[in-house]
Amino acid sequence: MAVKLQAPQNLLPVAGVKLAATWCGIRKAEKDDLVLLELAPGSHVAATFTRNAFCAAPVQVAREHIRISAPRYLLINAGNANAGTGEPGLQAAQQSCALLAEQMGCRAEEVLPFSTGVIGEYLPVDKIATALPGLQAALREDNWLAAAQGIMTTDTIAKGVSEQVRLSDGRTLTLTGISKGAGMICPDMATMLAYMATDAAVDADTLQQLLQQAVATSFNSITVDGDTSTNDACVLVATGQAGNSPLRLGSADADSLQQGIVRLAQQLAQAIVRDAEGASKFVSIAVSGARDVAECKQLAHTIAHSPLVKTALFASDPNWGRILAAIGRAGLPELDLQAVNIRLNDVSIVRHGERDPDYTEAAGAAAMQADEITIHVSLGRGSAAQTFWTCDLSYDYVRINAEYRT
Amino acid sequence: MAVKLQAPQNLLPVAGVKLAATWCGIRKAEKDDLVLLELAPGSHVAATFTRNAFCAAPVQVAREHIRISAPRYLLINAGNANAGTGEPGLQAAQQSCALLAEQMGCRAEEVLPFSTGVIGEYLPVDKIATALPGLQAALREDNWLAAAQGIMTTDTIAKGVSEQVRLSDGRTLTLTGISKGAGMICPDMATMLAYMATDAAVDADTLQQLLQQAVATSFNSITVDGDTSTNDACVLVATGQAGNSPLRLGSADADSLQQGIVRLAQQLAQAIVRDAEGASKFVSIAVSGARDVAECKQLAHTIAHSPLVKTALFASDPNWGRILAAIGRAGLPELDLQAVNIRLNDVSIVRHGERDPDYTEAAGAAAMQADEITIHVSLGRGSAAQTFWTCDLSYDYVRINAEYRT
Repeated sequence: MAVKLQAPQNLLPVAGVKLAATWCGIRKAEKDDLVLLELAPGSHVAATFTRNAFCAAPVQVAREHIRISAPRYLLINAGNANAGTGEPGLQAAQQSCALLAEQMGCRAEEVLPFSTGVIGEYLPVDKIATALPGLQAALREDNWLAAAQGIMTTDTIAKGVSEQVRLSDGRTLTLTGISKGAGMICPDMATMLAYMATDAAVDADTLQQLLQQAVATSFNSITVDGDTSTNDACVLVATGQAGNSPLRLGSADADSLQQGIVRLAQQLAQAIVRDAEGASKFVSIAVSGARDVAECKQLAHTIAHSPLVKTALFASDPNWGRILAAIGRAGLPELDLQAVNIRLNDVSIVRHGERDPDYTEAAGAAAMQADEITIHVSLGRGSAAQTFWTCDLSYDYVRINAEYRT
Repeated sequence: MAVKLQAPQNLLPVAGVKLAATWCGIRKAEKDDLVLLELAPGSHVAATFTRNAFCAAPVQVAREHIRISAPRYLLINAGNANAGTGEPGLQAAQQSCALLAEQMGCRAEEVLPFSTGVIGEYLPVDKIATALPGLQAALREDNWLAAAQGIMTTDTIAKGVSEQVRLSDGRTLTLTGISKGAGMICPDMATMLAYMATDAAVDADTLQQLLQQAVATSFNSITVDGDTSTNDACVLVATGQAGNSPLRLGSADADSLQQGIVRLAQQLAQAIVRDAEGASKFVSIAVSGARDVAECKQLAHTIAHSPLVKTALFASDPNWGRILAAIGRAGLPELDLQAVNIRLNDVSIVRHGERDPDYTEAAGAAAMQADEITIHVSLGRGSAAQTFWTCDLSYDYVRINAEYRT
């Protein structure tokens, strides 16, 4: 029941990136659960990871590997998060890297491991080992869709997007990315899992900055349930095979690439919300007139995490008092209530901190009927503005998460 | 479907407090929606109110009235919160007080108004005016149960408790209280609505301190959905009719009364959680080994507000990885993961920050089956400890809040 989200079509290959997916048996259902990305030599890789203190074993290993080497392989399993598993978990992640490295003739540090799924169960490395030869044989540049499908857990639709960017010398850069949700989504410096690649030539520092800037207004601007995962990771690869001269921050071409990355990341992030567990509404929370971006986020998160706001959205009930109550408890210092305005799409519901005298229940109800709703909150105390994306809370969210391990 | 909660029996009258309840038509269903408490002259009244910035009109009026006078009447309506209603809302609250004062021959400032229900709709003062004479005629000391029923909204069971305290001179003090929930519950310095009374003689300053201390470990230690209401209020009345010499903080008798108030407040607060919207489990979160109480609360709230933890509790699924993930994202600085232990009732699930090697799924599943579950989290970094109470997230929570206004 994803909200206006279709399976990706025509994902463009990125020169220098080959992918493969297979089923190795970590997931009970016979759906692909193991994905491999092979990056051409010379590729640069930028990554951001979860800030959850209990970060998963693969996150710890991937962080260390990317610090000490240039990654050649990304190995991703779905169905098991390998988190909360202590020393055995670390060994399982390291062993997966070592097995693949041996097969490929590279060093274990050149492999980044990723896991997503149930927390607290041990990762069956033997199943991964058995599947690796077949995975290598299946590597192809036009396998992005298979990879997008192979990293899914409770996602109902695979998520992938391609973009192209024209450089000043006439060259065209290609960007393709995939992501997965669909619960435990409140990314903090990263997201669940997202992999983006471009054939652009970009130096490593620039690439990391491009990624961090894009993540701030995409993956870090979505929330489904406020639960920051132990396994969030977002990777951006630049293979350099487009042949352009390396891009540096501040140039017009780097700006073009930045805009392409932001478009890609926002579409992938929004796809996670559109396919969020049980979601029937795609909700934008546009905060403006704030003192700073942190205040925008604090307010948007308070609204987005309110079960009462979320159930009203699910019911298409313009019970805007719940939005008002959420704003009131968001903890913004010295809030001038009389400067607060709230709109649902184009319908003004609160003006100067109280019910708009012209508001009618019929107008509110009409606005709430739509699949896509924007809640505009204007604080009237500054010039900062940012938009965040979330979804409603439905029976299906409860069902999916009550039945998750059965 | 309240969790092990029965309708109050044998609520003891408190000398000096008379109560009445009636249906005036603010609620659509023909259930009492208007309650009056009359306090004998000489009573002291302490109160705490919501910290939600968008506090309701009656909260603003009650705060002002209690500041400038000794309250004689508490007038409470259910079905309409009179919040987000601006100047018309303030006038409606003030007018209700004036109408009652005129009838009773007192000043409007001696009336405290309270409202609970839907936010953002105008309060029909005419309906209240019509009902006031009948309400006066019905005032009786043994009407606590009727009052408890009259303040209910989505509550399924009335909530009331009596306690008795023995003083050193042999005198017995009586305490009786009532409360209501059942959603938008994350009290911040107060609760939804709770009214407690004792016949003790206590000076006003002592009474306010007794109330604040009791609220900290009762109403401010519960959360259903993290949504702090615009209308929270908690009132403690001391009529002085027991005839004891006025109690002062620090005396043995004041300690006895304090313990009685805490017992009363904790039972009333826990009753709100047991009857929380859709609740099928009563969950205690006992945090220990923390640096301070604020840290206990921050951690307990992160766990208690996690939709993933709450749905796992609903499903009786020992998916403890979600508890681990919540602890990891709670934002506690310099958390030593290896010092973290987690137990479900008596079952150790996480030791030294990872899955307890002796943990079995069967033991975890058995612990999760119970109606009442305690999650023990020990941080191993200090001596602060506090327990908080919450509930699970069920289909019925979604249904109740999706249908709330229909």
